[in-house]
Amino acid sequence: MNQFGERFRLSLFGESHGEGVGVVMDGVPPGLSLSAKDLQADLDQRRPGQSRFVSARREPDVPRILSGVHNGRSTGAPLCVWIENRDAQSKPYEKSANVPRPGHADWVSHVWSRGFADLRGGGHFSGRLTAPLVAAGTVAQKMLGSTGIVAAAHLHQVHDVAGPVNAWDARAIARKAAASSLHTAHAASLGKRFANTIESARKAGDSVGGIIEFRAEQVPVAWGAPFFGSFESQLAHLLFAVPAVKGVSFGAGFAAAAMKGSQHNDPYRMEKGKVAVDRNNAGGILGGLTTGAPVWGHVAVKPSSSIFLPQETVDLSTGKDTVLELTGRHDPCIAVRAVPVVQACLRIVLADFLLLARQQGLGATGTPAI
Amino acid sequence: MNQFGERFRLSLFGESHGEGVGVVMDGVPPGLSLSAKDLQADLDQRRPGQSRFVSARREPDVPRILSGVHNGRSTGAPLCVWIENRDAQSKPYEKSANVPRPGHADWVSHVWSRGFADLRGGGHFSGRLTAPLVAAGTVAQKMLGSTGIVAAAHLHQVHDVAGPVNAWDARAIARKAAASSLHTAHAASLGKRFANTIESARKAGDSVGGIIEFRAEQVPVAWGAPFFGSFESQLAHLLFAVPAVKGVSFGAGFAAAAMKGSQHNDPYRMEKGKVAVDRNNAGGILGGLTTGAPVWGHVAVKPSSSIFLPQETVDLSTGKDTVLELTGRHDPCIAVRAVPVVQACLRIVLADFLLLARQQGLGATGTPAI
Amino acid sequence: MNQFGERFRLSLFGESHGEGVGVVMDGVPPGLSLSAKDLQADLDQRRPGQSRFVSARREPDVPRILSGVHNGRSTGAPLCVWIENRDAQSKPYEKSANVPRPGHADWVSHVWSRGFADLRGGGHFSGRLTAPLVAAGTVAQKMLGSTGIVAAAHLHQVHDVAGPVNAWDARAIARKAAASSLHTAHAASLGKRFANTIESARKAGDSVGGIIEFRAEQVPVAWGAPFFGSFESQLAHLLFAVPAVKGVSFGAGFAAAAMKGSQHNDPYRMEKGKVAVDRNNAGGILGGLTTGAPVWGHVAVKPSSSIFLPQETVDLSTGKDTVLELTGRHDPCIAVRAVPVVQACLRIVLADFLLLARQQGLGATGTPAI
Amino acid sequence: MNQFGERFRLSLFGESHGEGVGVVMDGVPPGLSLSAKDLQADLDQRRPGQSRFVSARREPDVPRILSGVHNGRSTGAPLCVWIENRDAQSKPYEKSANVPRPGHADWVSHVWSRGFADLRGGGHFSGRLTAPLVAAGTVAQKMLGSTGIVAAAHLHQVHDVAGPVNAWDARAIARKAAASSLHTAHAASLGKRFANTIESARKAGDSVGGIIEFRAEQVPVAWGAPFFGSFESQLAHLLFAVPAVKGVSFGAGFAAAAMKGSQHNDPYRMEKGKVAVDRNNAGGILGGLTTGAPVWGHVAVKPSSSIFLPQETVDLSTGKDTVLELTGRHDPCIAVRAVPVVQACLRIVLADFLLLARQQGLGATGTPAI
Repeated sequence: MNQFGERFRLSLFGESHGEGVGVVMDGVPPGLSLSAKDLQADLDQRRPGQSRFVSARREPDVPRILSGVHNGRSTGAPLCVWIENRDAQSKPYEKSANVPRPGHADWVSHVWSRGFADLRGGGHFSGRLTAPLVAAGTVAQKMLGSTGIVAAAHLHQVHDVAGPVNAWDARAIARKAAASSLHTAHAASLGKRFANTIESARKAGDSVGGIIEFRAEQVPVAWGAPFFGSFESQLAHLLFAVPAVKGVSFGAGFAAAAMKGSQHNDPYRMEKGKVAVDRNNAGGILGGLTTGAPVWGHVAVKPSSSIFLPQETVDLSTGKDTVLELTGRHDPCIAVRAVPVVQACLRIVLADFLLLARQQGLGATGTPAI
Repeated sequence: MNQFGERFRLSLFGESHGEGVGVVMDGVPPGLSLSAKDLQADLDQRRPGQSRFVSARREPDVPRILSGVHNGRSTGAPLCVWIENRDAQSKPYEKSANVPRPGHADWVSHVWSRGFADLRGGGHFSGRLTAPLVAAGTVAQKMLGSTGIVAAAHLHQVHDVAGPVNAWDARAIARKAAASSLHTAHAASLGKRFANTIESARKAGDSVGGIIEFRAEQVPVAWGAPFFGSFESQLAHLLFAVPAVKGVSFGAGFAAAAMKGSQHNDPYRMEKGKVAVDRNNAGGILGGLTTGAPVWGHVAVKPSSSIFLPQETVDLSTGKDTVLELTGRHDPCIAVRAVPVVQACLRIVLADFLLLARQQGLGATGTPAI
Repeated sequence: MNQFGERFRLSLFGESHGEGVGVVMDGVPPGLSLSAKDLQADLDQRRPGQSRFVSARREPDVPRILSGVHNGRSTGAPLCVWIENRDAQSKPYEKSANVPRPGHADWVSHVWSRGFADLRGGGHFSGRLTAPLVAAGTVAQKMLGSTGIVAAAHLHQVHDVAGPVNAWDARAIARKAAASSLHTAHAASLGKRFANTIESARKAGDSVGGIIEFRAEQVPVAWGAPFFGSFESQLAHLLFAVPAVKGVSFGAGFAAAAMKGSQHNDPYRMEKGKVAVDRNNAGGILGGLTTGAPVWGHVAVKPSSSIFLPQETVDLSTGKDTVLELTGRHDPCIAVRAVPVVQACLRIVLADFLLLARQQGLGATGTPAI
Repeated sequence: MNQFGERFRLSLFGESHGEGVGVVMDGVPPGLSLSAKDLQADLDQRRPGQSRFVSARREPDVPRILSGVHNGRSTGAPLCVWIENRDAQSKPYEKSANVPRPGHADWVSHVWSRGFADLRGGGHFSGRLTAPLVAAGTVAQKMLGSTGIVAAAHLHQVHDVAGPVNAWDARAIARKAAASSLHTAHAASLGKRFANTIESARKAGDSVGGIIEFRAEQVPVAWGAPFFGSFESQLAHLLFAVPAVKGVSFGAGFAAAAMKGSQHNDPYRMEKGKVAVDRNNAGGILGGLTTGAPVWGHVAVKPSSSIFLPQETVDLSTGKDTVLELTGRHDPCIAVRAVPVVQACLRIVLADFLLLARQQGLGATGTPAI
């Protein structure tokens, strides 16, 4: 089912080249100040057509609040945000049904839909559906408003160029990523190399992958649940819903495999009367619950599937192999535009757990005294 | 909520040192041949006390089917499997409430439970809850029975010793892992080094991490759903519910970040009148749907948190820092015992999507002709 | 959560006097022929302004399909239908926040929303949200298309005037209700009395209640599930979501209380090699599963809360008792317009169980041979 | 899916003549004092073998807490209660597969299970599954503990003998029903007639139906949710999961159909600075939300299907009509034993909404000031 969240629940809908894309959000508390302008600010981070690093599609991505807001405040009723498509150019996709693009969902969605899929621009399987996810992230951020939680993401690696992991606090990430057209906190040291790498790929008609780092601070202790309701399960579930994401890790992640327990285990110590966690290899989560230390991890994003080099594929109308040369407007490094989406995912999951914490009486803004 | 699955749905319950651990499974189709003996075979792969590579706790892990089976066949009613605890030794855990073990859920579960947690052996947050997951995996495998799908997992890396990725087909993985006390298909080439690495850690009172590779073959095309219902979202959700898992990736995974689109995109070609996928960097999944190519990926398992070296922690009864030296019975490389759990997770998700495919009329045993 | 259905799942959104009302439907199979015109036909049965028996609000209720349909066919992706508000007159509701209307949700929704509710015309709590339910019913009917199932509803009682229960087959109900401006199959015998009763209430500034009978035929045997997933649980859940519904019963219903088992039990007999059910006091359902006999029952609809007689209420701005005299446009017997909504509910639940039956391999169009 | 509840979620399992029956409860807050003895007290109200009005099956119904409780307190982890079967006598059911009992689920569950159902005593479809529901009701009552809410039910009508509706407050209902072997608050006036009616049916080998009244007081204002999450939808959903329930109504219920709006609408007035509701025809619910007035309504229970008179049915082994004469131990008026089950259902739904109210910050114990 295309729904996510236990208490803050999202239903996505829409197509890349159809009428538009949208999301219904259930569980939004009443009283949040919210306007289309608030949504626009975050959407602008994700939308195409803004620099040479991203697709030239010129979608203004103007959000319209269809329900759930009255007099500038959420009412507690389901909140629907709708973003009309305006600059869809469907011509390049006319062949997708018969000549599937490698790396895209064309063929499998065609099968899944028994031949009835809208394949223009990827249809419902398009990355364009992440625009409403970003809108949901804005609402989530409003929900987190008074908690002091800071949740951010930035581009940490482009192709084989990577900065140091876990190097920035969440505020720095938010600030630096917002100031960078590549959404990276490593802009001062690596911005130029990132840009050159992407530009080279673009010029070659090729694309490159990347890794995004996410981080949340001031998350209270014990948000989450055991097993299926774990913080990691929920966040990974949502992140893997983002097209092009092929890996998710928390804290030391895959590097933990090559560590010893004595290196990996994070020591506790008392700090001003509270339990503090050192080292934080766990990425701020133990047993599916937050430890109060920063929640951090990584998201691997594959190189954009849309490239302009000749690719081997099949022609389903003839049943023969063929070679495809794509045209159209595409992102040479989709990881750039995935940064605000990953940030939105983090906020959405935090907002969901905020509601759980309230239900549990765990308090939304601090550690219970025990 | 501690429930997983849309159509094949699991509810876990139990504690490490309480009465036992169990699972209720909804959505099991009627008519499956199933006995406690069937469950035992898989549980034996996971249970402790079997070699020097795993904990010395001697749990026979005898499953009892409490409901949903009649005359040796599933009835379609909820199927409950219950495994009594028999060799719990709670003494070593008496201090956990006040002196939390680093890397364990002691402290956070104590907060989450507002001080009422059963902390003995990790209580409900224990890895022991994966025993009922393995039982659910057995039922899932029965559901997959007639489809021809082969789903398996094996230990691919121990500490810094790794074999080649994506090197074995699913049948080889199943066969080799079953024959290896370390559940690895790399036994011939790396078994000794794996063993030595674990043994060194054990002797030093330390532990090591590892990486598990999973793989499913003969999965029909287009199993899955877009976005939140994606194959990757569902499987990652379940895998991150397994204690100690800190990373999940599909296909090339994190390595995809350093690839170009022209390298990463998997070409299509016709093979005997059917669409085939070459290279399979995507791990058999595009747009959240299976491509018919093998589903494969990796799971990073942190080093066991229980080590016998002195560790810095806090004493909540005094509010001061302290040093903890654990005793008890633990696994020097929990990744070994996580292998059958990862395999079970893969089968559980496949069984859930099998039911979806039936609902969709997509056919469970083959590719629809289009 | 404002979502209904296990496999065919609805998310409602919208407000009576806001931008409009809508619904996202998940689980719609691909390939259904569907147009806005199809939706319009059913919506026209529900919409106001059509006769003197219903509200004078003149909403054209023009549906717009925002997603999930391509080239006139459903794609399998989430299907969103949106109906803009056009004739909202919010002036009469300006006082609702301070002077709640008896029988309406004004006051409780004000509390629920912590003072942020959109109270105009009932806001999200308005009966206007049943328009998207009717749209979902149209899609459900498309899903049922090839099964031969006929599902219908009609106005069975107005105030104290009632026809005989269980008197018409489903086709007759559908045909007669469609031909009657009061949506009743009793039009020939009781149409005039129904009309007079409603007209008297209208002239007196008052309103009357009614009872709706629903009926589905050709439903295959064993659709449903035990306990929480029972056919009755699912249908009653949905029917009680319809504003003004205060009672739901199946088969003999409340009258069953005054029966003996020997009267109430429905005998089985063989008919043309198949098991048939006589009498059908059970309303076509035993143990939560359909018996193959017609599914039938009743829905009690309270008299419209909006009346024009003086009513005692409170003024929250002064904290004193007051008397309210409503103006505006209202239905003297809301049960009339609830008929197509009840019919839609029945179809929605049947469509959900159709998908379950497919998943179970129970067959959608007939009784499995056993 | 056999699961109920959004935040306090139940998974039922078990069979009438199998190993036993049980329930897993998710969402139980930590810290509740709970023992098997607490559960026993409520189970004793439901269990058979206690008087001549109920089945002679002598089940002690001894509950065992398998998980989620430690040192006499709930831990917040899933709480499993298990009740072993001890006095199952399966011989009378040997024919059920071939000669289905009228009014029972034998035949439909046989079809649903594709021939693999456990039909002994109704198997999973048995009323015996309501024992774990009662256990869940006990836990729900513990959750409601500090709120002051009183939720009760009693036998209001037996066959054609009924007391006045809405005549007792919740405390009186609880007290009088507990003191009556027929679980009725009308014992003083109607106890003898109820008993004679049931006894006559029993002697005749027949059975009678009944109506149960439920009532909850001190429920805070605005518990519930719009539409699918409405208080009525949730409670009706659960009540219709109880075998033999064929009708559910709130407040005036079906009688509302024959009322005018001016009679049915409940006036508001100020009482000690708070909004109060007069008359309460709405049964304490408007727009799916509680009004602060008592929540009340009725549940129609059909006469027990098991009677000892000859009944027409079919023999599936021969494909011919036949006559069945049942033996065994049955209830002449199952409505008697359904009373504690209805009470449990009411408490379960209240507990679920308590958690929602906490999540919303609506306060669990009183009306928010507005």
